Amino acid sequence: MSNWTAKMRNAIVLDTHVLLAAPKRWVHEELRMPDGADIDWYYTDNPPSVVVVPVTGSGDVVLVRQYRHNLRRDTLELPAGIVAQDEDLGAAALRELTEETGWVLADGGELVSLGSYYARPSETAGYSHLFLAAPVEARGAAKLDTEIEQYFDMSTVTMPLREAIAEIGHTIDGLETIGGLLLAQRRLALARLGEQD
Amino acid sequence: MSNWTAKMRNAIVLDTHVLLAAPKRWVHEELRMPDGADIDWYYTDNPPSVVVVPVTGSGDVVLVRQYRHNLRRDTLELPAGIVAQDEDLGAAALRELTEETGWVLADGGELVSLGSYYARPSETAGYSHLFLAAPVEARGAAKLDTEIEQYFDMSTVTMPLREAIAEIGHTIDGLETIGGLLLAQRRLALARLGEQD
Repeated sequence: MSNWTAKMRNAIVLDTHVLLAAPKRWVHEELRMPDGADIDWYYTDNPPSVVVVPVTGSGDVVLVRQYRHNLRRDTLELPAGIVAQDEDLGAAALRELTEETGWVLADGGELVSLGSYYARPSETAGYSHLFLAAPVEARGAAKLDTEIEQYFDMSTVTMPLREAIAEIGHTIDGLETIGGLLLAQRRLALARLGEQD
Repeated sequence: MSNWTAKMRNAIVLDTHVLLAAPKRWVHEELRMPDGADIDWYYTDNPPSVVVVPVTGSGDVVLVRQYRHNLRRDTLELPAGIVAQDEDLGAAALRELTEETGWVLADGGELVSLGSYYARPSETAGYSHLFLAAPVEARGAAKLDTEIEQYFDMSTVTMPLREAIAEIGHTIDGLETIGGLLLAQRRLALARLGEQD
């Protein structure tokens, strides 16, 4: 259907300007298209992040309620955070779980990848790496990792996974959390099928 | 679980600096927390967007393949775009559908809201408004709305909705598209249940 021969996939990056280096990395690229046109392109060059679906032995999911200043309201989300430089993705998922909720993977528990996903592809460049952690157990209090998180008013909420899925479109309206819950549900259903074989 | 009394929900915005006005709006806020601490806060103040799940009478979904420069690769996504100033959300969804694919809502077709969702809540501030459009039919070619879209190499792909859902985690890895497909599937299943009553 496309009638164009000059595509962005063949663009040359003439120059990159970092408009903000930290705590976000905001980038302006000057791109030259194959047809010679010059285009200004802007995006948030965000680092990879992890999102973890922590499920207990009795089928509850561990969520975080927190204040999101960008949205000017509270949200109910899966534990998530940014991967540190050179950090293993799975280690980052377990670190964020413990920091944000105080919960940990139980002895004999497993951390399973649910895949890597992007959101807001016209705004950001990084992927969210989703994990299922099951079973998890409570161990101590949350311990927030950055000075600013003290202001987010985070608290831990547990509910049956099926109840959380029923809350999609109601109290749960974050696309990373929705993706994580539905992918975990599918994975757990497949695992139960496997046990029946 | 929270031990903090000074919360961001009660912060005062001391000053707002627009680091970039267009085509993105990148904002730096100086916030004063209730405990007197001053915090610098950065986010993309993006406008609302729409995502549409176009389903044909025979159960196919209409998707868009396009090059995403931020990800440096092609993606397979639901038609989506930014809501214009003062534009009705449903009108924006149908406009984006036609612009990006050439497909339209068929006579007697319905546009149904699937809810409003956020993604990347530490990066962005806007919501994605999801719609189911069914049945849809092909009518002419795509007609891209902005000069830059000519470079995105967009093309239309149709496949059975259940096949698209099976592609989640494979060729489909965008969280807005995943949310839209799964919410549409749930909505269509409920509608079929209703018809059986």
